[in-house]
Amino acid sequence: MRFGFLIYPGVEELDLVGPWEMATMWRAYAGGPECLAVSETGGPTVCAKGLKIAADTDFERCPPLDYLLVPGGFAAFDEMANARLVGFVAAQARSCRHILSVCTGAFILQAAGLLHGRRATTHWKALERLAALPGVTVAEERHVRDGTVWTSAGVSAGMDLTLAFIAAEAGAEAASTVQYNAEYFPDGRVYGTAHRADAASAYFRSLAPST
Amino acid sequence: MRFGFLIYPGVEELDLVGPWEMATMWRAYAGGPECLAVSETGGPTVCAKGLKIAADTDFERCPPLDYLLVPGGFAAFDEMANARLVGFVAAQARSCRHILSVCTGAFILQAAGLLHGRRATTHWKALERLAALPGVTVAEERHVRDGTVWTSAGVSAGMDLTLAFIAAEAGAEAASTVQYNAEYFPDGRVYGTAHRADAASAYFRSLAPST
Repeated sequence: MRFGFLIYPGVEELDLVGPWEMATMWRAYAGGPECLAVSETGGPTVCAKGLKIAADTDFERCPPLDYLLVPGGFAAFDEMANARLVGFVAAQARSCRHILSVCTGAFILQAAGLLHGRRATTHWKALERLAALPGVTVAEERHVRDGTVWTSAGVSAGMDLTLAFIAAEAGAEAASTVQYNAEYFPDGRVYGTAHRADAASAYFRSLAPST
Repeated sequence: MRFGFLIYPGVEELDLVGPWEMATMWRAYAGGPECLAVSETGGPTVCAKGLKIAADTDFERCPPLDYLLVPGGFAAFDEMANARLVGFVAAQARSCRHILSVCTGAFILQAAGLLHGRRATTHWKALERLAALPGVTVAEERHVRDGTVWTSAGVSAGMDLTLAFIAAEAGAEAASTVQYNAEYFPDGRVYGTAHRADAASAYFRSLAPST
């Protein structure tokens, strides 16, 4: 089994690496799939915040994937018009068991025709823009599963998404082993009041600031 | 102001990129410091789970840093005996305002003499090993501040550490802005029972599995 992680110029670092860490922990400790990073041309890519990450393979050489995760970033709004990239996602999706997106990666899924008639979510900044596209029902949740298509809210939400996905594919004890090894027991602290804005997603807008 | 992120062969991906994302969000949205990745020789490094990440600079060319974060990974047990790397950390620490570590990065801080007489923490797998070293008092907490030295538990704990650090350096509203943009409002789900083992850190050992 193979789990592919899409990389493109301007991809948001944690969108990619949060799920990568959970999936590679699944591989290391609970029998999960081989993980590989794939980009259009292979080689190094500069991410949204300047980190340089290199792909393991390119679109031509990439083997058939069982799972594919599409991370986001502002650059996803450019990549959703990149016919080669959207075509790669659409072609892999035909044989993938599941497709996942983080943040604005949902826009690439939509461009590939994968959100038609489905519930999905994205970063709070992009909820209205996603809702304006045809065929998709936007949910203001941290992550959403609709059949074989999994989408998450922004940036850090990909970790919660991937753990939920592992639990569904391999069982709660596999997810438990990953969570334990990644020591993913967040302190749940909520700082200040920025998140109480009208633009915020419903699932966190009402959280009380920690004292 | 400059915030350096140490990279070395076998560094754990999320140890590095979780804090990197929070710090670069601080830079992008709340006036935080310039962020740069530094390794012994510069250039690409293969991380613990196979991701290839390239540094921005090397030890010789790295400018004086205001903050330095040392991520972990099993490879930290090798790097704590790397005199050049430990020397770089010790030398930067003399002029840094704050030093932070994630996971087993604490062992590199200890080798650099930075944990003497301090409370600190690390990944649950390494708590006993850290406690056996001279001068350090180990706390089973998600993250620990002792003056200008900040240490966190394993892998994902670096994100909580970095948000707490930003709140202390720049105020709760700066941390709030970062948390909001990174959409770091974890669902708090606890999978299964792996974390209830005797080896677990006290702060999460008693968490009830989510239903």
